[in-house]
This record gives sequence, structure tokens and C-alpha cells, in this order.
Amino acid sequence: MRHYDIYVTAKQGIFDPAGATAAAALDNLGFTGIEEVKIGKYIQLKTADEVGLEELTSMCEKLLANPVIEDFSIHADTA
Amino acid sequence: MRHYDIYVTAKQGIFDPAGATAAAALDNLGFTGIEEVKIGKYIQLKTADEVGLEELTSMCEKLLANPVIEDFSIHADTA
Repeated sequence: MRHYDIYVTAKQGIFDPAGATAAAALDNLGFTGIEEVKIGKYIQLKTADEVGLEELTSMCEKLLANPVIEDFSIHADTA
Repeated sequence: MRHYDIYVTAKQGIFDPAGATAAAALDNLGFTGIEEVKIGKYIQLKTADEVGLEELTSMCEKLLANPVIEDFSIHADTA
């Protein structure tokens, strides 16, 4: 079994409405000193041993991320 | 300015509908060997220097995560 961690984030310059809303809400709750909040996805995958990085990249491009507006990075989790 | 990365995941035993749907969709797309998919949040925060871990924990408990069903972990990003 293999474990992978995938991070999906909005591309540079793409507006992140969830992050902007969270930043405003933190401010409303009285938290100060917040400069920016970005909210992306943290995906944990457990796969069979034969599933490799190439296949994971394909999964991200086709389903897990939207390559038009999002970047993703894949990390093999050796723990 | 400080950078923090926050990972929000469903607690052990809490059903993760987004992850289950993604796992089924990957299977439908023809990807084999998927054992489990869990989808959480990856939050990137930029804050003023005086914002510390205690305040970030409070932000997670009050807004960024739902402590009833989600775990969160906070990492200071020194990069």
C-alpha cells in the first residue's frame, strides 16, 4: 500500500472566494494581523503498490484538481 | 510576516462524502488500485509577526475547522 498527499491550490492570480471570505470572517471575529488566507484541498490517497506518480498526475488532471485554475503537487508519504 | 500551513481532515470514523465520491469517480474513470481517498482542507495563512500558534489554534476552533468532526494541524512555514 502506498500513501500520497496531494495539495491543490488556486493558481497565482485566480481569486479564491473561500479564502477571502475566511479572511473577512476572521477579521469580524476580532482576530487582527491576518494578511491573507488561501483555502485549497488536502487530499490523502491510499493506493495499491503499483500506482505511481504518472497515474496520480493523471488523476489530478482529470478529476482531483481543475488544471485551468488550480495547481497541484503530489507527495509520496513514506510514513 | 509569517506563513502558516493548516491541514484540516475528517476525524477518524467520520464519513467523508467528498472523498468517497472521488474514490468512486476515479474508479469509474478506469483508475485501478485506489484503496481510499480522503479530502480535507489545505489552508495557507499570511499573518503579521505577532500572530502566534495560540491565536491560530483559536482561529481553527472558531472558524477554519469544525472541531466536532474535524482535526487540524498547524505548521509554521519557515520558507
